Amino acid sequence: MKTLVAFLLSFAGAVSAQTLPSWNEGDAKARIVAFVQAVTDKKSRDFVAPAERIAVFDNDGTLWAEQPIYFQFAFALDRVKALAPKHPEWKEKEPFASLIRGDVKGALKGGEKSLLPILAATHAGITTDEYEKVVKDWLASAAHPKFKQPYTALAYRPMIELLDYLRANGFKTFIVSGGGVEFIRAFAEQVYGIPPEQVIGSAGKQKLEMRNGKPVIVKLPAVDFVDDKEGKPLGIQKYIGRRPIAAFGNSDGDLQMLQYTMAGDGRRFALLVRHDDAEREFAYDRQSHIGRLDKAWDEAKAKGWTVVSMKSDWKKIFSFEGTKQ
Amino acid sequence: MKTLVAFLLSFAGAVSAQTLPSWNEGDAKARIVAFVQAVTDKKSRDFVAPAERIAVFDNDGTLWAEQPIYFQFAFALDRVKALAPKHPEWKEKEPFASLIRGDVKGALKGGEKSLLPILAATHAGITTDEYEKVVKDWLASAAHPKFKQPYTALAYRPMIELLDYLRANGFKTFIVSGGGVEFIRAFAEQVYGIPPEQVIGSAGKQKLEMRNGKPVIVKLPAVDFVDDKEGKPLGIQKYIGRRPIAAFGNSDGDLQMLQYTMAGDGRRFALLVRHDDAEREFAYDRQSHIGRLDKAWDEAKAKGWTVVSMKSDWKKIFSFEGTKQ
Repeated sequence: MKTLVAFLLSFAGAVSAQTLPSWNEGDAKARIVAFVQAVTDKKSRDFVAPAERIAVFDNDGTLWAEQPIYFQFAFALDRVKALAPKHPEWKEKEPFASLIRGDVKGALKGGEKSLLPILAATHAGITTDEYEKVVKDWLASAAHPKFKQPYTALAYRPMIELLDYLRANGFKTFIVSGGGVEFIRAFAEQVYGIPPEQVIGSAGKQKLEMRNGKPVIVKLPAVDFVDDKEGKPLGIQKYIGRRPIAAFGNSDGDLQMLQYTMAGDGRRFALLVRHDDAEREFAYDRQSHIGRLDKAWDEAKAKGWTVVSMKSDWKKIFSFEGTKQ
Repeated sequence: MKTLVAFLLSFAGAVSAQTLPSWNEGDAKARIVAFVQAVTDKKSRDFVAPAERIAVFDNDGTLWAEQPIYFQFAFALDRVKALAPKHPEWKEKEPFASLIRGDVKGALKGGEKSLLPILAATHAGITTDEYEKVVKDWLASAAHPKFKQPYTALAYRPMIELLDYLRANGFKTFIVSGGGVEFIRAFAEQVYGIPPEQVIGSAGKQKLEMRNGKPVIVKLPAVDFVDDKEGKPLGIQKYIGRRPIAAFGNSDGDLQMLQYTMAGDGRRFALLVRHDDAEREFAYDRQSHIGRLDKAWDEAKAKGWTVVSMKSDWKKIFSFEGTKQ
């Protein structure tokens, strides 16, 4: 029996040395581990019951890359081209005409407004089952322009380890994203180990319809909920109904979610990912239009939240790359 | 080693004999057990991976009683009386004036429409944290008019066992109720073992507000989502994003949820609870206004869904009562 206990203890020690292997030893990793140990140690005054161990993660720029454009937009643009043969009228109609000619900048020159007809044309009018299949097919075939890898390979290795580490410590991990909830659900389980019911995102209106005598759900071209900025705490209350104890983001769109998380009682954790590695990923922050990190960064500094430098805190950013020593 | 295996097997046998102890041996129990065995047996052609084992339950009339009025309405009526001293204007204003005089029938003579100002006055204008506390305090102090028990004691013992049994077999159990999501969340974890993030219900609009420098969520007097009839499959898609493999209800409001569940591929399970025990609970069905079971009952018979008779299938309805032999 003594041998068995010794064996189990040696195993526990081995696991601990292997915690977050793609993270460099340093302040960010040390803070994560200290937080997890404090809330899971029954003898700690910071102990949190497993049911309350809710951790929320932004997706774009926090769990996977978001440059040069949000991957869901890349999907929408590709989808317009795929659907174009069935829509001859698009040749005369902006923003579709520019898109079909390959002129993305021209198509989007009207700003975010020009995205709305594109999103409506590519994200509505089909059932949720059909949409899931279309997204999965695209993810299996499309490649990122810089990395020449499938988009799902652009998930950050250290963040996948962090999700696993939190779950191994009794946390329930949720995505709380401004992106479309059904777009993310199409890959979140396979890529992040997060099941569809733990994905919160922006959503369109839907209706129940009978097709061939069977009920299906059809996506409508109208916005139901925008899960960004103030929408993130509102989405958390709507879907989870409990204030998280840990929140992870990378941009000003995550600020309210981090504030809401940190305003609860007891020990809390907030983390921002900084994109500062132009060589291995992209370097942006305050300069960026997509994923702009400005006010949230200032608040993180003022309040002592954890800020991760991708350049110095992460040994490896993507699973496909070699490990930086 | 042989002894250990024999011990474990004897234990498994003992567990099986104790399965659903408040259910009489009979068709309903046999069908539940056969379904669970089929979808959890890796060698079965009906095997379902744990992540897909989603079971959805209506609440009022399925997991707890719903007569003589939905318990949430009983809460709202009591709440009007509790708030009346702060609202002297209610003495001159219907439906509040009748309610304060104790004339519930008079207050509700305008039908469901007269409930709206009552719900707005009792379910809005406060934060979600305050509302949770008010509901918990009411549940701890109010008593059911017939049973003279706290409302939470009106949860059905056999259904609590069923929830436990499903979870022990790797199912994830969700409530999908026409009732207010935050009302149910206030007791679902303690009474049913269902955490807030697995409760789907009707919901009001909300807003994020800063109070004393901290973000809180305030309930607004406007409907955001009605989780009843067609709303139930829509709520399932919105919150879970995956078609359940088992659904449990008791009224026509659950019909679309049961149809949606049964329309998926592979083995599925649908169950309706019939209220036919006037002595131990209430006897209604087609005659009732609340919890009316009419079309769904016909469809259950036509399609061979499981129909539970509370009178003959359940040894015990409530935990507080003696067991019927």
